[in-house]
Formats: sequence, structure tokens, C-alpha cells
Amino acid sequence: MQTAELSVITASRTQFKAITEELAEIVKRNGWQHGILTVFVPHTTAGVTINENADPDVVHDMEWFGNTLIPRNNNFRHAEGNSDAHIKASFYGSSVQVIVRGGKLCLGTWQGVFFCEFDGPRTRSLLLAFTE
Amino acid sequence: MQTAELSVITASRTQFKAITEELAEIVKRNGWQHGILTVFVPHTTAGVTINENADPDVVHDMEWFGNTLIPRNNNFRHAEGNSDAHIKASFYGSSVQVIVRGGKLCLGTWQGVFFCEFDGPRTRSLLLAFTE
Amino acid sequence: MQTAELSVITASRTQFKAITEELAEIVKRNGWQHGILTVFVPHTTAGVTINENADPDVVHDMEWFGNTLIPRNNNFRHAEGNSDAHIKASFYGSSVQVIVRGGKLCLGTWQGVFFCEFDGPRTRSLLLAFTE
Repeated sequence: MQTAELSVITASRTQFKAITEELAEIVKRNGWQHGILTVFVPHTTAGVTINENADPDVVHDMEWFGNTLIPRNNNFRHAEGNSDAHIKASFYGSSVQVIVRGGKLCLGTWQGVFFCEFDGPRTRSLLLAFTE
Repeated sequence: MQTAELSVITASRTQFKAITEELAEIVKRNGWQHGILTVFVPHTTAGVTINENADPDVVHDMEWFGNTLIPRNNNFRHAEGNSDAHIKASFYGSSVQVIVRGGKLCLGTWQGVFFCEFDGPRTRSLLLAFTE
Repeated sequence: MQTAELSVITASRTQFKAITEELAEIVKRNGWQHGILTVFVPHTTAGVTINENADPDVVHDMEWFGNTLIPRNNNFRHAEGNSDAHIKASFYGSSVQVIVRGGKLCLGTWQGVFFCEFDGPRTRSLLLAFTE
């Protein structure tokens, strides 16, 4: 296993930020050829997902629907007022796997990897691991 | 890492289609003995999950509840009209991991692996990776 | 790949039970130094997630919101009356990945790994796999 880190700066409370190009660059720079790239979020109010990176309306709809389904103001106990962000983090998940072949991310035509900010704006860091 | 592909044909807009037997057959055919099988969906309106494959009412209830919770018609912007499918894809996730020992999938008694179609019917392809 | 098992006893119908210390102990006992730990749930009415393990109100809110969003009594067909638990199992997911470096779990400051019981109380077992 080899590892790397990626820093992400988010601009609003909720934001799906594409990180596909940054991941591809890290894979290239490290010479990772053939294996699995694990993208892990070491935060509890953010997640990571793979979805469409063609029409920006898709992630707009995902953000909007998430905020409707899991409202910030609710009968929550947690005093920091960000229980919605914790719930979203677990629904989206703390990691994704991307298969790498010939040094390239094996994503579908329309797929991109998105860092999911649910309690920003913040500076976040992701932990990446490559296993052959 | 070794890889393989699996083609899945779906029959309706939403469908949880069991692919456990197909995966077991691919593991056997490739002689994969001891490692992790990653099942990756390279599509943005479909997912993959592991759940009960005994009583078909379970996946019926999962499909029905998903369609109730995330309705197709909503205040979505994305012009293709399938934002619900994109949201479901991220809720269920783009990959699962199955532990393989002695050439067998280590699933629980009632577990099966399901390809989750959210915008079918379509012909889909899955990317499989085996790491030791 | 090396494997291990972990038994978890749950005390109520829904319970997010921290298993971080148990996982760290298994990693240490097996001498697993540098790789990926896959935590797999071989059950269909339970899941596993990574979230905050500082303020217990966070998992309280996650449990409460999950029970509100996905009510036990609904127009479900499955005769066992636990379709809500199956749906939650797929929303949270059947596995998580934790990066291990220098024999330590690389979790964020506030992160813990939680076994998610959705149809307890029961005695459950988890399957762990370590790949380098």
C-alpha cells in the first residue's frame, strides 16, 4: 500500500466539489499503474461519492434534495447544530474505491469523484491509499 | 489486481437484480482464491448493494420505499428528468466489497449482491477487481 | 489477505455501537502494519459506518432521524416486519474501509467505527480482512 493526501477547500455549507482531476494527477505523479485507489474522508461532517460530472444541475439537485430530506433544523440534541451534516456523511459514506488500470482511473463516461461538504466552508484533507 | 467485466440487462425503470451467482461464477472461472472482490458500477444512475436474497418481498419493499422517499417528479433542475436516479445511485453507492476465501464469496446466509437499476431498462456493465 | 472475526452483542432494536477499540486491538494482535482493513457485515438488517465518537448525542440523532425517515410500520410486504431494517442496512452499507499505517487505524480526530444494529437485540459477527 502507498498513500498520499489531498487538500480540499470548500466555499459554502454544502458543496459537491469534483476532485477527479486532482486524483488522476496524484495517481500519475506517484506512478500508480494497476490497483485500487481508496479515497478516504477523515472528517465526520463530509463524505465522498461518485456521480455525474457533466451537467452541473445533477449535483445541484443532489445538494438541494439532501437539504430537503435532512433539514438542518430538526429535533436534534447535538448542541453544535450540525447533526444533519453527520447524517449526510454516513448516507454518502466515508470512502469510495476507484479501479486504476494502466495508470488511469477506470470511471464511466459521465462519472466524477466528488468531495461532499456538509458543514463548510472549511479546509479539508483526504487520505488516499493505493493497493495492488 | 486482476479484473473482469459483467454485463447486466435490466427490465424496468427501477430493479434490484441479484448478481451473486454470476459473481461466484466469475470468481471460479478466474481461479480467484483468497482476497477482496470489488464490484464497481461505472454508471451514474445505478448502484450496487448487498441485502437479503431469500424473500423477494425485501427488495420489493426497498424499491417501493426508495421511489416514495425520492420521487421522480420533484423540483429538480436537471433536464433529463432522472435526478432521482442520480440521488439513489449515491445513496446506495458505486461499489461493494466482498471477501473471498477458498474461492468462495464470504456472504452471510441470507445475503446476495444486487445490481440496483434506477433509470432502466438498460444494458449495463460492471467492472470487477480482485486484489489479494 | 488475512482475516479475523469480531463478535458484537447489541442491546436494543436500533443501536450504533462503537467498535473502534476492538478493531484497533485486532489489528495490533495480528501485527497488521500497513494496508487496508475492510470491515464487512454478513447480516442483512445491520450495517457499519464511520462517524463522530465524541458527543454521544450525534449517534442518538442519527438513530432518531433514521427511525423517523424510515418508519418500521409502513406499507411494506415483507412478512417479518423488518423491511425498515433492510433499507437502513443498504443506506449505511455493508462494509467500510480503514487505512492502517504503522499498525494504527488512520481515522480522523473525531471518527469512530460503529456497528449499526437495525433489528436487535442480537449477537452479530463481523468479518474483517486486511490487504497490503
